[in-house]
Amino acid sequence: MTATGIPHAASACIDACLHCYRTCLQTAMNHCLETGGRHVEPSHFRLITNCAQMCRTTADFMLSSSHLHGRICAACAEVCGACADSCEQIGEMDECVRACRECEQSCRRMANGQLYGDVGERASHAGAGQQGQLLM
Amino acid sequence: MTATGIPHAASACIDACLHCYRTCLQTAMNHCLETGGRHVEPSHFRLITNCAQMCRTTADFMLSSSHLHGRICAACAEVCGACADSCEQIGEMDECVRACRECEQSCRRMANGQLYGDVGERASHAGAGQQGQLLM
Amino acid sequence: MTATGIPHAASACIDACLHCYRTCLQTAMNHCLETGGRHVEPSHFRLITNCAQMCRTTADFMLSSSHLHGRICAACAEVCGACADSCEQIGEMDECVRACRECEQSCRRMANGQLYGDVGERASHAGAGQQGQLLM
Amino acid sequence: MTATGIPHAASACIDACLHCYRTCLQTAMNHCLETGGRHVEPSHFRLITNCAQMCRTTADFMLSSSHLHGRICAACAEVCGACADSCEQIGEMDECVRACRECEQSCRRMANGQLYGDVGERASHAGAGQQGQLLM
Repeated sequence: MTATGIPHAASACIDACLHCYRTCLQTAMNHCLETGGRHVEPSHFRLITNCAQMCRTTADFMLSSSHLHGRICAACAEVCGACADSCEQIGEMDECVRACRECEQSCRRMANGQLYGDVGERASHAGAGQQGQLLM
Repeated sequence: MTATGIPHAASACIDACLHCYRTCLQTAMNHCLETGGRHVEPSHFRLITNCAQMCRTTADFMLSSSHLHGRICAACAEVCGACADSCEQIGEMDECVRACRECEQSCRRMANGQLYGDVGERASHAGAGQQGQLLM
Repeated sequence: MTATGIPHAASACIDACLHCYRTCLQTAMNHCLETGGRHVEPSHFRLITNCAQMCRTTADFMLSSSHLHGRICAACAEVCGACADSCEQIGEMDECVRACRECEQSCRRMANGQLYGDVGERASHAGAGQQGQLLM
Repeated sequence: MTATGIPHAASACIDACLHCYRTCLQTAMNHCLETGGRHVEPSHFRLITNCAQMCRTTADFMLSSSHLHGRICAACAEVCGACADSCEQIGEMDECVRACRECEQSCRRMANGQLYGDVGERASHAGAGQQGQLLM
């Protein structure tokens, strides 16, 4: 647990989501708009701005200790994965690819932790016998 | 299609999402906070504010014609369903229950339309033989 | 007052803000990205997406009956005015110009109502002698 | 300038805004809801959640390099100041008070930098004779 009562695993995932939101939004609104060309191709640009939005909303669910966070994390992981793929195809977007991949993996761990009653805190609390409810 | 190129089915779902966002946020911040008691019980209050947020984000994906909207609509339908259940248990929240149920159903139709290659525009374009991609 | 306790003037301004948010976001993500050229020129595209965001946040303050809504409405009016100007210069964006101008005017009325102790409810409550606090 | 082209002063203010958004939202949705009593008193709870929202929107304007960021930062500073005052009156909210005060000051510096043609980058670019436009 952190000082604020948010479990460590969730806190790391919130970090990843907010980093991805910030990186995607800043990249879209500066690098993409200023570079133009394929960087403002509709499907790519929609994806990167929607990804920023979804990451922020997912962070909000975890910051609120919502018990539905697992479902939202699973959807966020898909959006981040699609955004990373799109950024790789466009090229010259390494920072964005990295932020999306990290967020995708972190969200997937959170989603699986909840779905299988595994709280994702195993590394730090091995054998603590805690119940599956990660956030309540 | 509407004048702006958003398909009718998506436009109706955007309406339902924005109505649910507005109803949930307004109810939480006025009725719930002023009534107090079980209306500000943590799990209920988190759900209603997170539901508002998720509905708005889902609307954003559709307003952006994101091809990932189906995945987001499916997650949104679950959040709305949970919020409607919670509001029913609390009681005296009929307007919120109605907005959540309508949004849940509309989002589920959008999610299914995409998942099964059925564009949800069948009523207006029967036999048009269009492909399953609703929004691109 | 509306059924939900939001004053009529605020309710009309919430409508204007949410209509402007929806119009700006949808126009940016469809018309602008698909048309390209000056429609994705950085300063224009930033303005239209930021305007959508600010309108939504302003609606949130009013939906929450925040007593700080006047300050936020004043800032929103400026953003909407700048966005309308930019859309006029670009051309072929009449719907967006109209939504921004209406929102600008509505927000300015709300801002003035609060700043000068005029609750903006005069039409419906003339002579009711109510105090200047519009939303509490 | 940072690697992404966002000036240092703006980057620090984005940090302050996102920290304040995160602290306010997490505190409201956990500490306030779980503690109850005056912590869920309507005017306080509205302020802390609206403050989170406004800080995030202000960060979005700066992440987008919007030339209107100064106006938004000024409004955000007022909201943060009011939220810090409210949290001080309630008590036991030191982390939130600190985050709000830091964000208030950072936003006020950004607002003044733009309003008076001082780009707020003086420390790093003394004598560079640059124009007042901080972000374009």
